[in-house]
Amino acid sequence: MQEQGNGMYALAKELFPICRSITGNGVRETFHILKKYYAEIKIHEVPTGTQVFDWTIPKEWNIWDAYIEDEAGNRIVDFKKNNLHILGYSTPIDQWMELPDLLEHIHTLPKQPDLIPYMTSYYKERWGFCMSQNQKNSLKNGKFHVVISSALKNGSLTYGEIIIPGKTEEEIFLSTYICHPSMANNECSGPALVIYLANYIQKLQERKYTYRIILVPETIGALAYLSDHLDSMKKNIIAGFNITCVGDNRAYSLVKSRYGSTLADKVMKNVLKYHDPAYLEYSFLKRGSDERQYQAPGVDLPVVCFCRSKYHVYPEYHTSADDLSLISAEGFQGSYDVMIKCIEALEHNEKYQVTCLGEPFLGKRGLIPTISGKDTSLQAEAQIVKNVVAYADGRNDLLDLSNIIEAPTEDIIPIIEKLKEADLLKLF
Amino acid sequence: MQEQGNGMYALAKELFPICRSITGNGVRETFHILKKYYAEIKIHEVPTGTQVFDWTIPKEWNIWDAYIEDEAGNRIVDFKKNNLHILGYSTPIDQWMELPDLLEHIHTLPKQPDLIPYMTSYYKERWGFCMSQNQKNSLKNGKFHVVISSALKNGSLTYGEIIIPGKTEEEIFLSTYICHPSMANNECSGPALVIYLANYIQKLQERKYTYRIILVPETIGALAYLSDHLDSMKKNIIAGFNITCVGDNRAYSLVKSRYGSTLADKVMKNVLKYHDPAYLEYSFLKRGSDERQYQAPGVDLPVVCFCRSKYHVYPEYHTSADDLSLISAEGFQGSYDVMIKCIEALEHNEKYQVTCLGEPFLGKRGLIPTISGKDTSLQAEAQIVKNVVAYADGRNDLLDLSNIIEAPTEDIIPIIEKLKEADLLKLF
Amino acid sequence: MQEQGNGMYALAKELFPICRSITGNGVRETFHILKKYYAEIKIHEVPTGTQVFDWTIPKEWNIWDAYIEDEAGNRIVDFKKNNLHILGYSTPIDQWMELPDLLEHIHTLPKQPDLIPYMTSYYKERWGFCMSQNQKNSLKNGKFHVVISSALKNGSLTYGEIIIPGKTEEEIFLSTYICHPSMANNECSGPALVIYLANYIQKLQERKYTYRIILVPETIGALAYLSDHLDSMKKNIIAGFNITCVGDNRAYSLVKSRYGSTLADKVMKNVLKYHDPAYLEYSFLKRGSDERQYQAPGVDLPVVCFCRSKYHVYPEYHTSADDLSLISAEGFQGSYDVMIKCIEALEHNEKYQVTCLGEPFLGKRGLIPTISGKDTSLQAEAQIVKNVVAYADGRNDLLDLSNIIEAPTEDIIPIIEKLKEADLLKLF
Repeated sequence: MQEQGNGMYALAKELFPICRSITGNGVRETFHILKKYYAEIKIHEVPTGTQVFDWTIPKEWNIWDAYIEDEAGNRIVDFKKNNLHILGYSTPIDQWMELPDLLEHIHTLPKQPDLIPYMTSYYKERWGFCMSQNQKNSLKNGKFHVVISSALKNGSLTYGEIIIPGKTEEEIFLSTYICHPSMANNECSGPALVIYLANYIQKLQERKYTYRIILVPETIGALAYLSDHLDSMKKNIIAGFNITCVGDNRAYSLVKSRYGSTLADKVMKNVLKYHDPAYLEYSFLKRGSDERQYQAPGVDLPVVCFCRSKYHVYPEYHTSADDLSLISAEGFQGSYDVMIKCIEALEHNEKYQVTCLGEPFLGKRGLIPTISGKDTSLQAEAQIVKNVVAYADGRNDLLDLSNIIEAPTEDIIPIIEKLKEADLLKLF
Repeated sequence: MQEQGNGMYALAKELFPICRSITGNGVRETFHILKKYYAEIKIHEVPTGTQVFDWTIPKEWNIWDAYIEDEAGNRIVDFKKNNLHILGYSTPIDQWMELPDLLEHIHTLPKQPDLIPYMTSYYKERWGFCMSQNQKNSLKNGKFHVVISSALKNGSLTYGEIIIPGKTEEEIFLSTYICHPSMANNECSGPALVIYLANYIQKLQERKYTYRIILVPETIGALAYLSDHLDSMKKNIIAGFNITCVGDNRAYSLVKSRYGSTLADKVMKNVLKYHDPAYLEYSFLKRGSDERQYQAPGVDLPVVCFCRSKYHVYPEYHTSADDLSLISAEGFQGSYDVMIKCIEALEHNEKYQVTCLGEPFLGKRGLIPTISGKDTSLQAEAQIVKNVVAYADGRNDLLDLSNIIEAPTEDIIPIIEKLKEADLLKLF
Repeated sequence: MQEQGNGMYALAKELFPICRSITGNGVRETFHILKKYYAEIKIHEVPTGTQVFDWTIPKEWNIWDAYIEDEAGNRIVDFKKNNLHILGYSTPIDQWMELPDLLEHIHTLPKQPDLIPYMTSYYKERWGFCMSQNQKNSLKNGKFHVVISSALKNGSLTYGEIIIPGKTEEEIFLSTYICHPSMANNECSGPALVIYLANYIQKLQERKYTYRIILVPETIGALAYLSDHLDSMKKNIIAGFNITCVGDNRAYSLVKSRYGSTLADKVMKNVLKYHDPAYLEYSFLKRGSDERQYQAPGVDLPVVCFCRSKYHVYPEYHTSADDLSLISAEGFQGSYDVMIKCIEALEHNEKYQVTCLGEPFLGKRGLIPTISGKDTSLQAEAQIVKNVVAYADGRNDLLDLSNIIEAPTEDIIPIIEKLKEADLLKLF
């Protein structure tokens, strides 16, 4: 079953070619596409110069073309073929220069000599090109025509927000980012998953929680959003997930919160240990995405980061090898399933209490067999019934129960429904 | 030394032939024997139909005979040779039938084809026979005369209770069950041990605690007892032990309480780790006997379950192989010794405090050697003396001391007595 | 760099020849030497007969000569060649005796037959000699002239105290002992290190804490000091270190406090894990020096014991093999460095809080690089900067920060200074 996986892959493929950065028209174009999949995204613009905590919204950057031509007129580097060739936020230039002068502006990955790196210089004005180390090694002396048709001007930073109200003001928070150029896992995958989750949540019957979902430029966008919404976020959010690098098909990764003990940590650890016991847990020391802001001292939101292969860790990270072949419908589907399990577990995460003293008489209610002997071993379901009843003492929420009785929440939830119907269980 | 072990084995052997069930004359006959070993057992009868929490006391079941005869008049199955042949609580029948009809009422253990299983149907009226899979396979077509001379009528459930008062109203609680037909470890062993413990406790000088000892039919008997005594049990019991399968000579087993942190867990873990470090700890998820009731939410008594080979785990469990060859005087003696150590540790489980500042001058009191050098290494006893004094800070009870200083309680208790005589230690 | 190591070795060498005991002129002579290295040692005398908690200050012992001569006039044992030959606190004697009578007063180490043991009998009047097992085996029948020129008379016990005041009355406490005859690691090393630490502390700029440093006869001296100063010590000491066996060059050892959770444990564990991850932790059950008194119930000072090779553990312990070849400048320097790191960590052990919400903009302040890409990996220092900021939430002191972010305090302290200068960090 990869129904959603196929859809997310198609969306990611549509987003892939756009040259995004932390500001500019690439972000707006991205939202134009996303709205085809989920219409109710509210777009916000934050003007250049706005102070957001310790930071300032930078100038808006746009780029139309960039290339390096040799004396024979060959375009040895062409932004239109791969937008990673340009150092993000490069200032404009149109100039002939000798090789040694050019080389000072060329960035490569010596350890991965075939690949183009992804690099940026948001807060110091520079220009530069990125290419493979092999290409750099092949450059011969001569003159080069260096052209960057870009603009760095006052403008605004663009982000998107989806609010799906529930029965309570308490919120579950999802965040991802839309500021990376043509890389697939990091980061066409995050927006694709988040949009599909929004569609799932929209259809959820009996939705207890309100869902706040944001798609922001990384770091500066998260800070801009926090700076405007911190009070209500601190008041309402019970668990949040920064979602990134979720399209590949390797191990699941959890980057824990600062102390690893929020409800978001609890639900994600619980879901992942049953979904795939080989999942990886990273300490907050290994953070790197917007969990840095959401978990900063004084912000203190209960947020973890969820990935398949974690940023910084997988070899294709921040290179031209992070392309559409790295992600897959299977990879997306797994991430989607994990997030749906987290959402369902949170929606049902109540404390339950058995209604009678001593074990209830389950046999007369058809909940366990009426003949007892050594080989009439309890079915798995009957064992879960007995264990739920044994630990439904008002102390344990659904996640505690799942951890204690060693059964996944998706197996426990229907049993709790049955026991409630039989009046054997009530909310504590 | 197996003085008590031999006695318990003899008692178990006397109990073995009786056909017990959760009600009926087998239970009463059992108490008749037990009273020869400990006279002060108070017998109670709870009438059929009495509501006990979510359950109802069932009809009383008695059985006089049961057999299957073939057309030649051969008794191919005979209750009088082995009472496991009858499905517990079988309704009466006297009928000729063809093999296929009979087979619907035959229960076997396909995985242990030589053995007769022990099976019951207390709460749904049925009749049935148990036999070995091998015997079932050997049955040939023909007519069979099926006879069960049983009665299922209003009557009562029988249980026994021993109260041995101490200096305080606080109680130590022992429970075992008397509802199993001819199986030795499970469950002639539990009543035999409990009766011997009652004799020990009766003779205890300076008994601090009151002891409440019950022998009840499993599950329904425990529920019946709880339903009548819950308030005083919750008020008084400081530690309790459900005692079952204690006659064989294999590993010791502890089934922990719901959260593993009651005083009963603490004392039993402490005693077993010194008595036999290879003992087995089972989580409450592996419960199966009356600890299910004593530790149910809302009942919450501080009770663990103590076994040698745990029910459900040993291969002879609930089969005809659980016979007198499975249990032994050695096995009983080990269980007895463990329980005595638990009782003694609880009776002395006070918090102690040293009476002086700095180390006491033990040398002048003859408690450690007066010449000091590298090879005049402290005897084990002297080391315990020093360590008791070092940790007798009012924070630690006897069990804490034993855990911290890595010495068994039976070695510490006499040292504490010496230190109290020397006025170096007082109760906190 | 062994600048201090060389000095401490020279001091230990000067202390080595003196015959010290828990009382007597050897102790006074020792202080005479120590004052050349640190003048401000205050000397105290506690008279014989003074009650100190459960103990009494014993008579003062002095010794001038001791030997055993055979009939030919050969001195087969001579105190002047090695003062370990005498059982500490031996009463005087001048007598001819046969070998069997002599042998009752000869102490050896059968398991280390080449070595002379160190032995004492402080609290029971005896006389005795110590020699190697090999020498004892070689003794032939005959008469022996046994001479001990000693005196055991009313006098006093001598100890030294250094107080170095700081900005607050809160104290850091150092203790070592000066009661052992000619053994190098145990115990010329402790006084040598403590005197060098006193010199370091004296020169410390901005010293927050007051330092209380004592050099006492082991056990009875510690008790005597405690009995006079307990109230102020309990009020003021935040962390203390009993320092012994610190001159050899083997593993570092920490003997933890009674429950292992004082500030002294915390700082010492933190420093040692970075300084030498192969360091050894011993439970308080392995105590043996004055931590026995400082951590006795009711005394409860936050004190640990710091050693290189721990007393009782290293093979040369309490033998003639504990000589000047066992200790070294390298060994001393390592111990010195560890103690300095502990002192510096305690002096800076504040709780810090970041001054802004969200991550501070470190790039504009030159604290991290301004170009970002996969291979512009953060320098170690930049990573520490980011992690300090991430965990400076007012909850963690310097030691917590060091433990959490996995960086030694000596690397964090200068970064905290930089962040404070940039107004990004403040005291909580």
